[in-house]
Amino acid sequence: MPTLLILSTNADDYAQLIKLAQLPDLEFTTEPEDCDIVLGETNLIRDMLPRLPNLKWVQTISAGVEGLMDPALRRDYTLTNARGVFGELMSEYVFGYLLLHEKKIFERFRAQQAKQWDRAESGVLRDKTIGLLGVGSIGSYLASTAKHFGMSVHGFTLGSESCVDVDVYYHEPQILEFAKGLDYLVSVLPRTKDTNKIVNTSLFDALPSHAVFINVGRGNAVDESDLITALNEGKIAAAVLDVTEQEPLPNDHPFWTTPNLLLSFHTSAISYPENIAKLFAENYYLYIEGRPLKYQVDFERGY
Amino acid sequence: MPTLLILSTNADDYAQLIKLAQLPDLEFTTEPEDCDIVLGETNLIRDMLPRLPNLKWVQTISAGVEGLMDPALRRDYTLTNARGVFGELMSEYVFGYLLLHEKKIFERFRAQQAKQWDRAESGVLRDKTIGLLGVGSIGSYLASTAKHFGMSVHGFTLGSESCVDVDVYYHEPQILEFAKGLDYLVSVLPRTKDTNKIVNTSLFDALPSHAVFINVGRGNAVDESDLITALNEGKIAAAVLDVTEQEPLPNDHPFWTTPNLLLSFHTSAISYPENIAKLFAENYYLYIEGRPLKYQVDFERGY
Repeated sequence: MPTLLILSTNADDYAQLIKLAQLPDLEFTTEPEDCDIVLGETNLIRDMLPRLPNLKWVQTISAGVEGLMDPALRRDYTLTNARGVFGELMSEYVFGYLLLHEKKIFERFRAQQAKQWDRAESGVLRDKTIGLLGVGSIGSYLASTAKHFGMSVHGFTLGSESCVDVDVYYHEPQILEFAKGLDYLVSVLPRTKDTNKIVNTSLFDALPSHAVFINVGRGNAVDESDLITALNEGKIAAAVLDVTEQEPLPNDHPFWTTPNLLLSFHTSAISYPENIAKLFAENYYLYIEGRPLKYQVDFERGY
Repeated sequence: MPTLLILSTNADDYAQLIKLAQLPDLEFTTEPEDCDIVLGETNLIRDMLPRLPNLKWVQTISAGVEGLMDPALRRDYTLTNARGVFGELMSEYVFGYLLLHEKKIFERFRAQQAKQWDRAESGVLRDKTIGLLGVGSIGSYLASTAKHFGMSVHGFTLGSESCVDVDVYYHEPQILEFAKGLDYLVSVLPRTKDTNKIVNTSLFDALPSHAVFINVGRGNAVDESDLITALNEGKIAAAVLDVTEQEPLPNDHPFWTTPNLLLSFHTSAISYPENIAKLFAENYYLYIEGRPLKYQVDFERGY
């Protein structure tokens, strides 16, 4: 019988939702030794890996799976991550901050506090250019929202060119070419060995000085010291970081007080158990039929 | 010969753009007595109305035309206003503030200033319900953006039900029914005798207490004293006003300091000369061919 172990701080929620789905033949267990399927958070799964003799399939509740990528860890199971559920959330987050910037919402609020009738002209998204570092399922969703707002979309990707909403694709080694002329740069890159500090001084030098950088991928993609320099020297206009190299950010980290830097504490897209349970159910039917699972992670590639 | 007088603080910009369009037979004048066509701002046109003996057509650069609606003013000309150019701008503005609210952007900023790692859960637009007071060309554009973000759209209108993105229409006297269950209420109503204080205590009492009200129409639609009470008593969560009864707002007006009220000083959609010049050119060709102009204002209806 397929037997599921749930390793999550929301284990009860997941169990309840999955029971409601009435998946055929599925048993639930709390004993690591009994399960062939694990659903949960990567850090909890990683610690449990040595104690799962019958493991065949791990479904994570996150998009990021770097906690399971250490080459010292076993790889004798099928790993699937959560995809397709974060694009909408990320899109709300990214466009919230883009519009905050264009509509000068902080400035209007300060004017109100000073009782000043501030009619400084707002900016517009229409006809601006957004550059996406990474065009997977999240990047593609961002591209569709950008198109709704009449923007041009440039994409930098290691992979395919399958997103119809991207106007121009760039690939290695064209990253500086890609950066030129962007009004917004958004990184949705996963943490892999290839993405370390891909956003650095060369890139900030190539961006126009009015550009805004947003990171909703992983903190490793940014050279943090280069970003602080870029903001202090006005090489770019502003940055919004949902993710940082260290989370939570240490109390003495310069990001807390870097000018024109906004932090949002890794809240841009949380995993909603309803979405994840649906995705698990979909993959479960494939699993019991012996068919290839959706959203499989390539251990070599790292995502 | 068709002869144009431009009455605008940006008259030079408009003249240059319209000359570039090379409209056939069009003459330019600065003498009111010579012109049959006027393009410009309603307040400047109103003052000039008695001095325009040959006036046939007025094209305003704004959507609002209340300055020309006084029954004491002449109505012996065709009046066309600017439409179709503000929907995109209004949509950026409205969704900027909706996302500010859902993503708790002010709260995150305050947490950053206090060096607090604030992981309070963000809200989402998806599956929320937006109610549009007025579903003309601006309301229809807002509806399309709401659909992009997966929202339900309810529309309250005196007029037609032609917008495909509205899920449910309401009409007089169903306004309190319309208000129930809305997460967001957005007024895009013009200033007419029928829209005075349509947003008042009865409406605030009908809205859920978590609702946010946004006014991008005209200030007369809101009973300002009722709104202050609603915010002070927590009948609604927040309000965003781009327009107010008096503009600029007097220094002693309570709106400056009403809790959970944000002001943006009538900046949500400015008239871009490029857009208006294009619209003027389009109507000019109809005018010289003797055909009905687009975007004609009905003096009785007031919009």
